[in-house]
Amino acid sequence: MSRIGFIGLGIMGSHMAANLVRAGHSVTGYDVVPAAVDRLAQAGGKPAADLAGAVDGAEVVITMLPDSPQVAEVVLGPNGVLAAVRPGVLLIDMSSIAPETSREIATAGAERGVRVLDAPVSGGEQGAIKASLSIMAGGDAADFEAARPIFEDLGRTIVHVGGHGAGQTVKAANQLMVAGIIGLVSEAIVLLEASGVDGERGLEVLAGGLAGNRILDLKSTTMLARRFEPGFRIDLHHKDMGIALASARAAGVALPLTGVVAQLVAAARAQGHGSLDHSAVLKVVEQLSAR
Amino acid sequence: MSRIGFIGLGIMGSHMAANLVRAGHSVTGYDVVPAAVDRLAQAGGKPAADLAGAVDGAEVVITMLPDSPQVAEVVLGPNGVLAAVRPGVLLIDMSSIAPETSREIATAGAERGVRVLDAPVSGGEQGAIKASLSIMAGGDAADFEAARPIFEDLGRTIVHVGGHGAGQTVKAANQLMVAGIIGLVSEAIVLLEASGVDGERGLEVLAGGLAGNRILDLKSTTMLARRFEPGFRIDLHHKDMGIALASARAAGVALPLTGVVAQLVAAARAQGHGSLDHSAVLKVVEQLSAR
Amino acid sequence: MSRIGFIGLGIMGSHMAANLVRAGHSVTGYDVVPAAVDRLAQAGGKPAADLAGAVDGAEVVITMLPDSPQVAEVVLGPNGVLAAVRPGVLLIDMSSIAPETSREIATAGAERGVRVLDAPVSGGEQGAIKASLSIMAGGDAADFEAARPIFEDLGRTIVHVGGHGAGQTVKAANQLMVAGIIGLVSEAIVLLEASGVDGERGLEVLAGGLAGNRILDLKSTTMLARRFEPGFRIDLHHKDMGIALASARAAGVALPLTGVVAQLVAAARAQGHGSLDHSAVLKVVEQLSAR
Amino acid sequence: MSRIGFIGLGIMGSHMAANLVRAGHSVTGYDVVPAAVDRLAQAGGKPAADLAGAVDGAEVVITMLPDSPQVAEVVLGPNGVLAAVRPGVLLIDMSSIAPETSREIATAGAERGVRVLDAPVSGGEQGAIKASLSIMAGGDAADFEAARPIFEDLGRTIVHVGGHGAGQTVKAANQLMVAGIIGLVSEAIVLLEASGVDGERGLEVLAGGLAGNRILDLKSTTMLARRFEPGFRIDLHHKDMGIALASARAAGVALPLTGVVAQLVAAARAQGHGSLDHSAVLKVVEQLSAR
Repeated sequence: MSRIGFIGLGIMGSHMAANLVRAGHSVTGYDVVPAAVDRLAQAGGKPAADLAGAVDGAEVVITMLPDSPQVAEVVLGPNGVLAAVRPGVLLIDMSSIAPETSREIATAGAERGVRVLDAPVSGGEQGAIKASLSIMAGGDAADFEAARPIFEDLGRTIVHVGGHGAGQTVKAANQLMVAGIIGLVSEAIVLLEASGVDGERGLEVLAGGLAGNRILDLKSTTMLARRFEPGFRIDLHHKDMGIALASARAAGVALPLTGVVAQLVAAARAQGHGSLDHSAVLKVVEQLSAR
Repeated sequence: MSRIGFIGLGIMGSHMAANLVRAGHSVTGYDVVPAAVDRLAQAGGKPAADLAGAVDGAEVVITMLPDSPQVAEVVLGPNGVLAAVRPGVLLIDMSSIAPETSREIATAGAERGVRVLDAPVSGGEQGAIKASLSIMAGGDAADFEAARPIFEDLGRTIVHVGGHGAGQTVKAANQLMVAGIIGLVSEAIVLLEASGVDGERGLEVLAGGLAGNRILDLKSTTMLARRFEPGFRIDLHHKDMGIALASARAAGVALPLTGVVAQLVAAARAQGHGSLDHSAVLKVVEQLSAR
Repeated sequence: MSRIGFIGLGIMGSHMAANLVRAGHSVTGYDVVPAAVDRLAQAGGKPAADLAGAVDGAEVVITMLPDSPQVAEVVLGPNGVLAAVRPGVLLIDMSSIAPETSREIATAGAERGVRVLDAPVSGGEQGAIKASLSIMAGGDAADFEAARPIFEDLGRTIVHVGGHGAGQTVKAANQLMVAGIIGLVSEAIVLLEASGVDGERGLEVLAGGLAGNRILDLKSTTMLARRFEPGFRIDLHHKDMGIALASARAAGVALPLTGVVAQLVAAARAQGHGSLDHSAVLKVVEQLSAR
Repeated sequence: MSRIGFIGLGIMGSHMAANLVRAGHSVTGYDVVPAAVDRLAQAGGKPAADLAGAVDGAEVVITMLPDSPQVAEVVLGPNGVLAAVRPGVLLIDMSSIAPETSREIATAGAERGVRVLDAPVSGGEQGAIKASLSIMAGGDAADFEAARPIFEDLGRTIVHVGGHGAGQTVKAANQLMVAGIIGLVSEAIVLLEASGVDGERGLEVLAGGLAGNRILDLKSTTMLARRFEPGFRIDLHHKDMGIALASARAAGVALPLTGVVAQLVAAARAQGHGSLDHSAVLKVVEQLSAR
């Protein structure tokens, strides 16, 4: 059992915090949206009126926020986590942000005696609800081991992938692959249908061979039916493609497919599909061919 | 049991013909390479001195040849299959060729009373040896049903995907997806390694989530070790990307990712990796970043 | 003055043949469209009832046809040019076709004692009318010199660029650059307008600096006004992008930008803009961003 | 004659400041590199020991710095320009930075009564030396008119392209076009040479037609000779491609070609060509094909 301060009780964070409550931890939560704090209280957590209240007395602080600027502000800002907590606290940022920001936070934490892990997740809202998330963590091995019991209350696949920022890099690699495979499945569907081939039967064969993949398994039915309720929204995947390209830039590598995939996701957003599932990249690909 | 004439006893065809012999069919084989014909004889098949000898008296003719021009010549040429066989024969072309050529052959066959299926396969040499190929067939349903017992002696996933050429279109879609996923896995590896993340652990996480796919399952170990013994050669995949782009052109669709993937495969060939496994696209992606 | 047989009196060929008549040559023309032959007669040329009639007695035969298959049939077919003419004739193919087909024709010509040049043009209908075409010729230097007086009656920039097929390769390079620059100008326009910048003033600056190019000079006004009367049609440029990619394949090189540009042109065609000017690639780029 | 504070006396800034001295302005300069300040003094300017000294008493402050973070710090930082100057000053940022940063600076300036223009330039070191730069300015028309006499002492093409940030957007569009055209010229060269066509003659034809552009005019000779002394360095163009992609993201548009071009420039940098001229993208394109 840990005393946990939890900052960011949105779609993902609310379920994760509730799972931690259920697992017996003492969870004090804060969010800029008061209703989100109320929900946590109903789930058995302790409401905090502000960030300082949430982290006061915490052994572990978890942040689950939209993007790098929010994490930077909440952690590094004048009234942020690092200013508020005592040395010895373990800060686990589970947001998906740029690896560089994670490294900056780790450095700033070290200066104040705060241990830091970056531990982004994949698995979406369903994974958050069912505590079946994949968690990819970067930071020191000892800190990872200290955090493991908490991770096990949140997810199923839990891997320490390297030093500070490594979790974010793996998340970035995950997101570029997911978007890329969605793009390829979209191109396959458009080619099959435009050629007069039954999409369902065609994708069935693809799924059974070397082209087989999780997107085909989970999304081919909805993609063929053009049903795009999220799931994982285009807006979020667009943010993540920005992180992937920024990670490549920071690492000094060139990723030609990722470069194009990012523009397809950007097009999906520009076309107004930001709130649809990321598989709506199909709409971009088929509109290109006026289908 | 069928009387089968088998044309094209190369890496794939030799194993497929031997499996048909083993299954009890009467198989007469021909190849331009005499040693290939001898090998079939040793496996219990009947050697033929020429194409006419192989198809003489056959109920079913199977062709398994490198590319569209060879199939066009062997089937449509002055001394080709259509000129040699009697009406009523079933011609199954199991080569991977352009859908348009398959449609031309079907039309020419119909004019001579020869029923035609296009039935390309995936699964590689191992699939041919183990009779575990995926077979995607295009043509009339009745002809597909007639061919089914033969297909069942050659493969495991056997699907009738549509009319003439549909098998080839599905194969093209398969090949663009496989090459594309190899490209994406390559970009993920380069990003992870350049960021100082352990590739094995990183890919393990990816394989367990929404990015999971057959290439990661089967090839991540060899790719991380930079071992590229084929498998399926770059040269063949380069041919197949040409077919994929030609199929898109014939279908009147634009496939932006496939357009880039095709150039990465072309680069692998230009860099001298034509005889390596298609996963050697990784060498192109890492050379781009001088890694 | 030469006795010229001219095959292919379409949009380009009709003006070119008329210019040769005007320059004093004896021009006998043939086209599958009888009205095109009539028009040449009105312009002072001699009508022929068939191909054999057009090349009978000719010292020089010029072909100006839509694509590789037509040229192959007209030149290499059983009743084609090579079958009809005497040794010593100079065959100048001014069509834009695959370099490989040009090389096949040159080889077939050599076997029959017919000298062959590939001499595709750029400059469009206006260039054909005003005899201001750019002509890029491949073949033997002596044959080029023999053809030069004829070229000078058709165009202004006349360059012998190399051996057989070299003219087509330069044409392919020209077409990939033109389509690519149109694509880049389109992206610039979309970025400027979406950012609230006046397109005209923005492009004015670009045209004055290192980004300056002929497309900006000639087409920025019509592109900004979304006026896309041809000019050079998308359908033709789509054909030419196919030639460019086939040329790259034949040369064993990878062209990543060309790979994407080809798909943008394919999209323009798929979206129904085949009869518009090639600058209508802008419509594809702006539709991607729903503008 | 204006009293000008000039911050940033690097490759570009030093020549620009010297030109302003020569034109009769009173120029006080500051740079973090003391030698740069000394050089300005030798050219007749006034050296300042720090930023505050440079802007003290200035009517106009010009900043010419590497990238967005430096400009943000120098202008918005606690000891920055906005903190140091009196209301009424005109701040002209001539750096090439993200349009969003320019807009933030304009907003912050307005709050303090400081008028702001973004006025990035193109034309390189030669343009700075010869006062022949292209200047693309964003901001209020009255401020632009006030700055015009200064601009005329620095450049030749001087255009007011729109509101705050518009100058940067036009610069971003310029840079994506320049890099893209360099990429296309590179692909043309590789295709020509791999096909056995003389590059010089081939490019001569291209330069004379619709594919003609400033890059071909100015750089084809050095590119064909593989001479890549800068000129404009890959490192800087890599930065600018980041700005172009960020501008597209801010504007909500998808730019597929720019997405690929950015990766080619990134590859040039990854391959160690950061200090070479941007035309060294050719090295990436030819290495792709092992040429």
